[in-house]
Amino acid sequence: MITLDLVLPDTAYPIHIGRHLLTRTDLLCPHLPIHDAVIVTNTTVAPLYLAPLQSALEANGVRVTPVILPDGEAYKTSETLNLIYDALLQRHCERKTTLIALGGGVVGDMTGFAAATYQRGAPFIQIPTTLLAQVDSSVGGKTAINHPLGKNMIGAFYQPRVVLADLALLDTLPERELSAGLAEVIKYGLLGNAEFFQWLETHMPALRTRDMGALQEAVRVACRMKADIVAADERETGQRALLNLGHTFGHAIEAGLGYGAWLHGEAVAAGMVLAAETSAALGWLSPREVDRITALIAAAGLPVTAPDLGVNTWLELMAHDKKVEAGKLRFVLLHGIGDARIESGVPTSVLEAVLTGRRITGRGRTTPA
Amino acid sequence: MITLDLVLPDTAYPIHIGRHLLTRTDLLCPHLPIHDAVIVTNTTVAPLYLAPLQSALEANGVRVTPVILPDGEAYKTSETLNLIYDALLQRHCERKTTLIALGGGVVGDMTGFAAATYQRGAPFIQIPTTLLAQVDSSVGGKTAINHPLGKNMIGAFYQPRVVLADLALLDTLPERELSAGLAEVIKYGLLGNAEFFQWLETHMPALRTRDMGALQEAVRVACRMKADIVAADERETGQRALLNLGHTFGHAIEAGLGYGAWLHGEAVAAGMVLAAETSAALGWLSPREVDRITALIAAAGLPVTAPDLGVNTWLELMAHDKKVEAGKLRFVLLHGIGDARIESGVPTSVLEAVLTGRRITGRGRTTPA
Repeated sequence: MITLDLVLPDTAYPIHIGRHLLTRTDLLCPHLPIHDAVIVTNTTVAPLYLAPLQSALEANGVRVTPVILPDGEAYKTSETLNLIYDALLQRHCERKTTLIALGGGVVGDMTGFAAATYQRGAPFIQIPTTLLAQVDSSVGGKTAINHPLGKNMIGAFYQPRVVLADLALLDTLPERELSAGLAEVIKYGLLGNAEFFQWLETHMPALRTRDMGALQEAVRVACRMKADIVAADERETGQRALLNLGHTFGHAIEAGLGYGAWLHGEAVAAGMVLAAETSAALGWLSPREVDRITALIAAAGLPVTAPDLGVNTWLELMAHDKKVEAGKLRFVLLHGIGDARIESGVPTSVLEAVLTGRRITGRGRTTPA
Repeated sequence: MITLDLVLPDTAYPIHIGRHLLTRTDLLCPHLPIHDAVIVTNTTVAPLYLAPLQSALEANGVRVTPVILPDGEAYKTSETLNLIYDALLQRHCERKTTLIALGGGVVGDMTGFAAATYQRGAPFIQIPTTLLAQVDSSVGGKTAINHPLGKNMIGAFYQPRVVLADLALLDTLPERELSAGLAEVIKYGLLGNAEFFQWLETHMPALRTRDMGALQEAVRVACRMKADIVAADERETGQRALLNLGHTFGHAIEAGLGYGAWLHGEAVAAGMVLAAETSAALGWLSPREVDRITALIAAAGLPVTAPDLGVNTWLELMAHDKKVEAGKLRFVLLHGIGDARIESGVPTSVLEAVLTGRRITGRGRTTPA
């Protein structure tokens, strides 16, 4: 087991990475202020992992209330959130009752938001069961639900007390979900770690066959980078926005197709390709680099071509992005592999060209496809 | 105009108290990070005060989106909250758009919670239009909505950028609402300021006839006390809970009768009498002090007798209180006028006796009514 620490001005918490951590109550129980916990999970994860976790806690004298949500991004709504609140209140849960998220990014984001807002703040623990959640969403305290007009529009910054990234839980992860997680792993290489990007180029086959050494290294590097970025900028007033590489495009894909049609990681994958192409159109990235990026994303089993939403729909959906500031869309673009920057001056003509698949070469000059 | 400052570890903000502050854009505009604001108000306040505020902001180049909610505690729900989110998203509001609460406690609590959660936190300003909101709910950053199973169960600690307590807005306040506000004013005397309690005994007639000097003094003392208590304990881990004097009983009255049947201040008034009677039953308060408390509350035009909810309903409703800890109900009780303390060991027999109106004298000994 590896333990990383995320240190923030107001709090600090450990991220444990290893196999068979699910029932390690020695890692969990010290973070429960009272012997009462609610495990929030979903219909897919519950049959696999709820019973061992619940039994382990109950064996330590903890009263456990399970809440089983429907599975999928389509259910990351205020209606589903209310199911959590209802259970908490029906069981007379107190403000010291701990909410444990046992699931992927959707369960983690919703449970975190429920914890942030139940009686103005209850303790919260993340046990991510997908690669995507282990490398990205479970760390850093971003919690949210979707609104019909935009993804993650309602939420809070609220940190967990501990994160248990149990790699053994990935044994049952469907291949498509594994690939979706690899999208976020690739993101870390792209946004700030060229060496890690190169490592991924070499180790992608091992990752896809779930070589435990490779997976542990990928989770470790991603969590370390995430923890460092969050520690420097918890509230995303600056560099934390780099973690949204591919996400402005990706969120538009998810909203445009309807939440759940593409997995979040798939949308981010195609979004990263669009970000690379936009960067190239502005002359900031070479065609060779775009090819390397596209090739690695494809090697992870991810889509490299975005769906055709129509240019107006694209622009309309992206106008709802949380990074919009003073009416200007802000994108995370690349000045090289491992060198992401926030850019607010991307001309609409360049976006239109990229989104309609026209080839563009050099500083905004467009040529017909 | 008087200005008080509330200084917290992470932030600080001014509370301006005076007449005709509503259109003082010199006090408002410096707190808007961009020229975009949403005014959240209700159907009662909008015809009176929305236009002057909106015009004043627009004259300063601020884009203003008004959101007019139905009026009343019965609408402090997730459904009404969604009306605010919908408006924010339909108007493409950014995370730097400022939400301005123009209304009483319900509007302030809901607007604050919307601001706390819109894109994980947007700026927020309080312009309280009721006495209750001016002396209590607009200061200190408690935001919330109700759940069918409990009042203020879903919420966040989230501070405004500035509070404008415009005493001129009280000119149109219905008498019943004025009295409801006086309940919270009396609370401050009771919980920690015997001198102020005595001042209130003398000045209650002046307050009820809206003598501006008396009102300004009452608002100033209450806001100063609230600011000091919040500064010492923002997250209510300790003495901030004293501000809930009368509220455990009061919330049960509101929930038991259905939100809106009694005004919050009316429920708190009857709740403070019950807290005084419980304190007397435990031998902590003299019958003479109970009489003074009851007399002052009655002089404010407030109910001194709680509705008969039935003992089991009382206990069930109070078991949902946010102050419940390790299964134990905690009450704010009095060891004298101006000396409130948090107590968790009140015997159920004492509560039952007080709630059924049986006379009790001295340390838990009960006598039939």
